[in-house]
Amino acid sequence: MHAPRDPAQRIRATLTRLDTERDLWLSTSHPTHGPHQVPLWFAWDGAALWLSTSATSPTARNIREEPRVRLSLPDTVDVVLLQGVAELHPPTDAPPEAAVFPTKFGWDPSTEKAPYVYLRVEPKTVRAWRGVPELRGRVVMREGVWVG
Amino acid sequence: MHAPRDPAQRIRATLTRLDTERDLWLSTSHPTHGPHQVPLWFAWDGAALWLSTSATSPTARNIREEPRVRLSLPDTVDVVLLQGVAELHPPTDAPPEAAVFPTKFGWDPSTEKAPYVYLRVEPKTVRAWRGVPELRGRVVMREGVWVG
Repeated sequence: MHAPRDPAQRIRATLTRLDTERDLWLSTSHPTHGPHQVPLWFAWDGAALWLSTSATSPTARNIREEPRVRLSLPDTVDVVLLQGVAELHPPTDAPPEAAVFPTKFGWDPSTEKAPYVYLRVEPKTVRAWRGVPELRGRVVMREGVWVG
Repeated sequence: MHAPRDPAQRIRATLTRLDTERDLWLSTSHPTHGPHQVPLWFAWDGAALWLSTSATSPTARNIREEPRVRLSLPDTVDVVLLQGVAELHPPTDAPPEAAVFPTKFGWDPSTEKAPYVYLRVEPKTVRAWRGVPELRGRVVMREGVWVG
């Protein structure tokens, strides 16, 4: 068992993982259809996460109705859980920061024949903890500000 | 790259993982509070998943309002995604099958001073796929029946 990490250590570890990992679980919801959960690629631009999905997917449909989302790195032991509001951007008319996504994955949603959308999520709350000893102090971003 | 698995192989692999893995991501939602996502222990009794959480958690609150849930094993590459309706059971008055949970984890929610609940989820839809080559045929349970 490790000693609980301090806030600065947790933030550093979280930023490293946002830079280096590829997938997360995205949870959306719809007032009448309930919860939805999918694995998606993500890229981090230093301030926001960029993801992409089919414009006709349940995920895109849900976000149009309920833009609040939860995102989790896959690991259930070393947990990083983010919460924010998703914006949808057409790939052909997205802000320049969106380029982190095709750069990371070598796949550009704007080149697909089927309609895709970018999801941009600026996290507002981030929690990071490894097991019960780190439950205290797990909120490392509050109202969009790292609390290190 | 492996050849796509047939339905029987996917079902066998899914059942093995339900028997042996410990954690999953549970996604719930609430008509006004939106989506919620947490990592939880689970145990499989052969027909349903058993989980436990605080009776006052957002997860328990959401399920009282919207019992439909999504559950995913952590791995985003070898995906197992389940969908069902959660029932809440008080640990002191749960069906005998609930015993799989304390047996697996050595922790019995009925012994806690704080109020806990069991979540029982009988999956209705299960999807299992490894990457794009396995997207076709990913539904391995439909309306509660394994489709092998």
